[in-house]
Amino acid sequence: MKIGVLGAGGWGSALANLLAGNGHEVIVWSIDEREVAMLKEFHEQRDRLPGVILNSSIEYTTDASKAVIGQKMIVCAVPSPFVRSTAKNIADKVSNGQLIVNVSKGIEESTLKALVEIIEEEIPQAKVAVLSGPSHAEEVGRGIPTTVVAGARDIEIAKTIQNAFMNDYFRVYTSTDVTGIELGGSVKNVIALAAGISDGLGLGDNTKAALMTRGMAEIMRLGLAMGADVKTLSGLSGMGDLIVTCTSKHSRNRNAGYLIGQGKTYEEAMAEVKMVVEGVYSAKATLALAREHGVEMPIVEAVNNVLFNGMTAKEALTELLNRDRKSEL
Amino acid sequence: MKIGVLGAGGWGSALANLLAGNGHEVIVWSIDEREVAMLKEFHEQRDRLPGVILNSSIEYTTDASKAVIGQKMIVCAVPSPFVRSTAKNIADKVSNGQLIVNVSKGIEESTLKALVEIIEEEIPQAKVAVLSGPSHAEEVGRGIPTTVVAGARDIEIAKTIQNAFMNDYFRVYTSTDVTGIELGGSVKNVIALAAGISDGLGLGDNTKAALMTRGMAEIMRLGLAMGADVKTLSGLSGMGDLIVTCTSKHSRNRNAGYLIGQGKTYEEAMAEVKMVVEGVYSAKATLALAREHGVEMPIVEAVNNVLFNGMTAKEALTELLNRDRKSEL
Repeated sequence: MKIGVLGAGGWGSALANLLAGNGHEVIVWSIDEREVAMLKEFHEQRDRLPGVILNSSIEYTTDASKAVIGQKMIVCAVPSPFVRSTAKNIADKVSNGQLIVNVSKGIEESTLKALVEIIEEEIPQAKVAVLSGPSHAEEVGRGIPTTVVAGARDIEIAKTIQNAFMNDYFRVYTSTDVTGIELGGSVKNVIALAAGISDGLGLGDNTKAALMTRGMAEIMRLGLAMGADVKTLSGLSGMGDLIVTCTSKHSRNRNAGYLIGQGKTYEEAMAEVKMVVEGVYSAKATLALAREHGVEMPIVEAVNNVLFNGMTAKEALTELLNRDRKSEL
Repeated sequence: MKIGVLGAGGWGSALANLLAGNGHEVIVWSIDEREVAMLKEFHEQRDRLPGVILNSSIEYTTDASKAVIGQKMIVCAVPSPFVRSTAKNIADKVSNGQLIVNVSKGIEESTLKALVEIIEEEIPQAKVAVLSGPSHAEEVGRGIPTTVVAGARDIEIAKTIQNAFMNDYFRVYTSTDVTGIELGGSVKNVIALAAGISDGLGLGDNTKAALMTRGMAEIMRLGLAMGADVKTLSGLSGMGDLIVTCTSKHSRNRNAGYLIGQGKTYEEAMAEVKMVVEGVYSAKATLALAREHGVEMPIVEAVNNVLFNGMTAKEALTELLNRDRKSEL
């Protein structure tokens, strides 16, 4: 299968490598000439995925049309803030019914839309699907067993994606609940900031597990209000991704939260993590969605208070942990 | 309130300390004279909770009747294999309607009963309740924020327990779903063995998150078949406790699994962890419950195969990760 990958960061590179290893003909696009030169010369994403030597059959280009025109599948792996502009840029090159698989996570602040919706809006002639789950690029790049879910409203499309990606170490389930998959994948980044903040404050595993559990309940409430399937949210793209994002040393959201818990601002934390921290972008949007759907999300609110409203991490966590005693259910 | 604590291990000591700090009059019973002597002399459980100096108002005894007769609440904190024998021993000392709170986790292999049921069977005149959640003793002992759930079929009893235990760092929710709380707390130990095995084999955070998510689905299926509330299982005593037990360095189930993943037998692992590893006891019982209720639990089955049927950790995990491709829901 001919596959174009948009975005040559850690996740784009790891997936391009996986797809090439599965026998597909893969071309990767990046807007960054320096990045493309590095990948062509070293077959290694030295900034984002150091140590993983990428399949030498992969081609690289700064010309988006080469990664779009004639491709059987387009994998969109650009950071969430750039999904709309990227989709806009390639829109006139996408053919009728061409398959685009979004593998990024996030909610657009101005429209409260998830990424599949944004791509559909910009490229109405495309078939847009999603691939998500607990899948740090650092591990997929090294062939460590990983399980994800491919979501498309048409199950046949989900199966096409499953067949393209599945191999010995990368197990792909299918689902038609695109809303649930995208919501789970986005909101967990906000909860991961809270988990990181808790770690940064020096609190314990008990504290973090309680935050993650209550965070999962917040994701469920919002998801149900938005028409997602509860089983999706308690599956790989909800609970699974929440777990890995809150606990893994590879998690930039958790690591940024840790720095914020130690007293840094989110700008300082993002500069130190040196990567886009999706949870910072999704935090406001998630809170706005919660308000729109009349759903209580105290952890998401606390994260917003710390990021944007000048509340200290300690104040926010203390307030969160001392809410009125009540029944669990 | 006068409170007797049965069992002077890590959890019994941490809870006795917490209750004494809340102003209660606490007496701790242990069958082990050496342990009682150590606690009296040093006010420290040096083997199980080193570094935590216990409230000096706590009394210690090897005479169970002193920790039972006249106590407003009895906290049962003996390891699961000793719950029935302990209950049998104190049965004739327990008064009509006296409150016993079980804080241990497990399922009895021979009867497939959870611990509250066992205590009720041996002491029918008692009111029996449960306290559970993500709460490693090492952290509660150091006053780290922790959230748990108090479960009793009569919500007023759950509130009594809530009032006795709740303080600044120990947040207690109430629930009436005793079955769900006990099931979540027990089966998660078996899943934690699987998570530890995965770590011991050198697999990654992606792998572990997938195992935990699929493990949670197994707990849900069994719980629903047994009449538990799905919200309990996705709450503190299910998901929360699963997370902490699978990821914390304090978790003896996870740590025992790690050693088994590295090729040790469960006997060797238990000897090295130097504590009762509840998951080993609950593994067979959980599989038997699954069969009784016609529920598929492949992870629990894999753990049983490794523990008792001579399958290597690698074989069992590989089989688990390579089941037929299918839809997530």
